Amino acid sequence: MTPAPGAAAPLAVLGLLANSELVAFTRLAADAAVAPELRDRLELCRLGGVATQRLTRLGERVAELGGELPDVVAPFLGTYVDFDARTPAGTWCERLLKAYVGYGVEDDVARLLAAGVDPETRRAVEVVLDDDGHAGFVVDRLSAAMASDPVLASRLALWGRRLVGEALGVVQRMITEHGELRGLLEEALPPGTGEAPLLQRVFAVLTAEHTRRMDRLGLTA
Amino acid sequence: MTPAPGAAAPLAVLGLLANSELVAFTRLAADAAVAPELRDRLELCRLGGVATQRLTRLGERVAELGGELPDVVAPFLGTYVDFDARTPAGTWCERLLKAYVGYGVEDDVARLLAAGVDPETRRAVEVVLDDDGHAGFVVDRLSAAMASDPVLASRLALWGRRLVGEALGVVQRMITEHGELRGLLEEALPPGTGEAPLLQRVFAVLTAEHTRRMDRLGLTA
Repeated sequence: MTPAPGAAAPLAVLGLLANSELVAFTRLAADAAVAPELRDRLELCRLGGVATQRLTRLGERVAELGGELPDVVAPFLGTYVDFDARTPAGTWCERLLKAYVGYGVEDDVARLLAAGVDPETRRAVEVVLDDDGHAGFVVDRLSAAMASDPVLASRLALWGRRLVGEALGVVQRMITEHGELRGLLEEALPPGTGEAPLLQRVFAVLTAEHTRRMDRLGLTA
Repeated sequence: MTPAPGAAAPLAVLGLLANSELVAFTRLAADAAVAPELRDRLELCRLGGVATQRLTRLGERVAELGGELPDVVAPFLGTYVDFDARTPAGTWCERLLKAYVGYGVEDDVARLLAAGVDPETRRAVEVVLDDDGHAGFVVDRLSAAMASDPVLASRLALWGRRLVGEALGVVQRMITEHGELRGLLEEALPPGTGEAPLLQRVFAVLTAEHTRRMDRLGLTA
């Protein structure tokens, strides 16, 4: 089966997100394996299961468009390799914050990309954006940890800034390397009167959302 | 909520199996991360998701019996630590065979234990025993690998013997340490005329099933 004409952009979106879920699964499993509390380990395991269900849903839409999941994931396999190498989390709290910031930026990008694809693909993308409880889990655990360790908050604020900088670097490379995604982002963020370059408009959205997420933790972005 | 009277044995079975699924999730994610082919990585990720769904199902039954998943899993957390330390898989094929042999023995034990619990708990246990495609996946990949490398078959046969020996050691410790499970196995395997000790009767079942599984790979157990 050959992908339908016009399917290149939706397939690229699905491939990008499928790779994110694949990476999320691996990260959640690694986090689960070192979780200090058994109930957290069980919760991270459940979240890893959610990532695989999302991957399955994305794969179904890929198949409907005449694509194959491995083929559409392959161009995005390297997306987070640099990010992971540049942000080794040293502690349990740093791991939690890394996932919170990283998944947050991924979700924001997915939300922007969803605006430009066909309604059926959008429905598959929206499944990825459902609240699975991960953000709430992290906010709960980090808030508890910071409450009993005031120094931790400033260290995590610093770590959050480093993480979001690296995450924006991932987005920048993604926009540079994948023209079909750039087109969708141009649709989602029309230049308006400001005429700022696309990257600047995307970063404005992503940093605003990041600030909101850090606020939820009581941290300055 | 306090566990119902008579729930100790079913809760122990559920705890043992929930720990197995938790360990399976972690192993499958680690296998996925090093899978040489992307389509295998995706399949192992899907299987990791199946493990989490099973864990959820077991947790539901634990809750119905008035227990809490972390409490019933905790006594079994160390079950596979020795096994994993003693059987470090050196290659991709060795990893695949380790999971195949290990999950196989776990399934056989679950099948024996299921015979002695109440019907509702048995239904939860039977979900764990559904064919999720893992065995077929391993047989397919190992058969292909052995077909193009005749030396591999004898190396894997040897590795399989080592794995099953260690897996039986896990079962032996489990029977020694958990009286409530020993009682269920006594029910599943009545002494009959042979009067062999329980451990010997359990091992007879497990080695027969292991031999059948190795046959499927064309290997001598």
